[in-house]
Amino acid sequence: MGAVDPETRTGAAAPFGDRLRAAMDAHGPLAVGVDPHPELLAAWGLPDDPTGLERFALTCAEALGGAVAAVKPQSAFFERHGSRGVAVLERLLAELAAAGTLSVLDVKRGDVGSTMAAYAQAHLLDGAPLAADAVTLSPYLGLGSLRPALDLAASTGRGAFVLALTSNPEGASVQHARTDDGVPVAAAVARGVAQENAAAVRRGALGSVGLVVGATTGDAAARLGLDLPATAAPLLAPGVGAQGAGPAELAAVFGAARRQVLATSSRGVLAAGPRAADVRAAARDLAERCAAALG
Amino acid sequence: MGAVDPETRTGAAAPFGDRLRAAMDAHGPLAVGVDPHPELLAAWGLPDDPTGLERFALTCAEALGGAVAAVKPQSAFFERHGSRGVAVLERLLAELAAAGTLSVLDVKRGDVGSTMAAYAQAHLLDGAPLAADAVTLSPYLGLGSLRPALDLAASTGRGAFVLALTSNPEGASVQHARTDDGVPVAAAVARGVAQENAAAVRRGALGSVGLVVGATTGDAAARLGLDLPATAAPLLAPGVGAQGAGPAELAAVFGAARRQVLATSSRGVLAAGPRAADVRAAARDLAERCAAALG
Repeated sequence: MGAVDPETRTGAAAPFGDRLRAAMDAHGPLAVGVDPHPELLAAWGLPDDPTGLERFALTCAEALGGAVAAVKPQSAFFERHGSRGVAVLERLLAELAAAGTLSVLDVKRGDVGSTMAAYAQAHLLDGAPLAADAVTLSPYLGLGSLRPALDLAASTGRGAFVLALTSNPEGASVQHARTDDGVPVAAAVARGVAQENAAAVRRGALGSVGLVVGATTGDAAARLGLDLPATAAPLLAPGVGAQGAGPAELAAVFGAARRQVLATSSRGVLAAGPRAADVRAAARDLAERCAAALG
Repeated sequence: MGAVDPETRTGAAAPFGDRLRAAMDAHGPLAVGVDPHPELLAAWGLPDDPTGLERFALTCAEALGGAVAAVKPQSAFFERHGSRGVAVLERLLAELAAAGTLSVLDVKRGDVGSTMAAYAQAHLLDGAPLAADAVTLSPYLGLGSLRPALDLAASTGRGAFVLALTSNPEGASVQHARTDDGVPVAAAVARGVAQENAAAVRRGALGSVGLVVGATTGDAAARLGLDLPATAAPLLAPGVGAQGAGPAELAAVFGAARRQVLATSSRGVLAAGPRAADVRAAARDLAERCAAALG
């Protein structure tokens, strides 16, 4: 099955890449991660149960809706609470949609065939309870195994961010390994994503299939031959704030690809809580600094 | 943080590897996949909604509880239905636990740090709503990134199956790539898992950290240098039945490691439904054939 060209699809929504570009231009290139750690719930004076989780999530929706380019809920912290936690995630996604704020659901799913199609239907299909504007995907089974998700995303105006090169030290054992033609795995993923975004590349737009590239990977991307500007991929860059990189370092790491970067910060923003107004102010401040450094 | 040695942990439950070995000896080396595809629901005369899903799951629990070594629910097909689908998954896991049948929850999760710890808590912690006896994990972020899950599993008598070498053609682009010292990614994952299972290796037992190795990978494991017998890893081998391999082919593919194999079949068994008794008979028949071929 070949790629569905998002430029020629018949759905109503604009391509995800266009919607993301508009949101980044309006609010700054920042996605705030909603990661309800037990420690963070405690810091907000909330119990580590579905009730506390719901209060946390709704405060985030109130604080961040309309204020930032995107919000990135981390599914693991909802799944910890079982189906009641997943129901809170549904509610958060619905609140963000109602506020017109893009949701990037961080699930890092990756499977094959009809199972991959089921994950795609869970998160990228109109009307699905857990539908988001984009999801994160993991390519250990090969980028090609993600085809059902990439196709469904293209046909519904949604997006995907594929794990490519991450900041954690263990990542190199897979991501730096070289395929038979000498291309590192992370670079091969980037090449494949560039093909997905070919139509967006032609019109100088942001593509709808993104990459996850750590904000503290230093010169690894260049060293491994990832030609990020050529991919037109939005670049989800975790690790801003708590994990070490500042907006200025982001610009240095991403160089010519810096206009593609969607910086991500979670605790760096949410530590301002529990008042929604304080979270909103912290998010806007960081978004402005990201815009200044990356714009 | 170093590996927790499952042999010296203080919890009440026996190591997962021991429990799995006993279950395989008693029932044959077969895990039946519970993959409620829309087509399968339709074939059983059930609606593709949470009601149909629940009927399907409870029939599987009735049919398979006490009849097979393990049951492997595929999370994607429950997540398609949002939190209501996840609630059905919770109920299926509870029914399997009540029947004393091992559950291997197929989620292929993989993340880093506190997020990986949250996934571990979701599925490997006593009392968690979605706790299973074992989960599947994906190592694109490096085997080391899975440490929080491997440690929690060891301390609660649970297990994990790490994706290593899969049958889908796209998998080679990552799994066959070679690290700087020339070791293919899949072989490096296997080596790391062998270290996790070191204590089980010493006492000639089945380890608690398994590998996912496709049943139709032919000689790829040998060609890439995966020394599967040395890992003591239980080998979750999807692809028996509908995807092509028969029990005899399994024995040929896995050779000296065949006693470690936990064959997996979903549609090959569930197509016998919708009557629980028919599903049970089909599962027992296939389990016997797996035992004969692999024992």
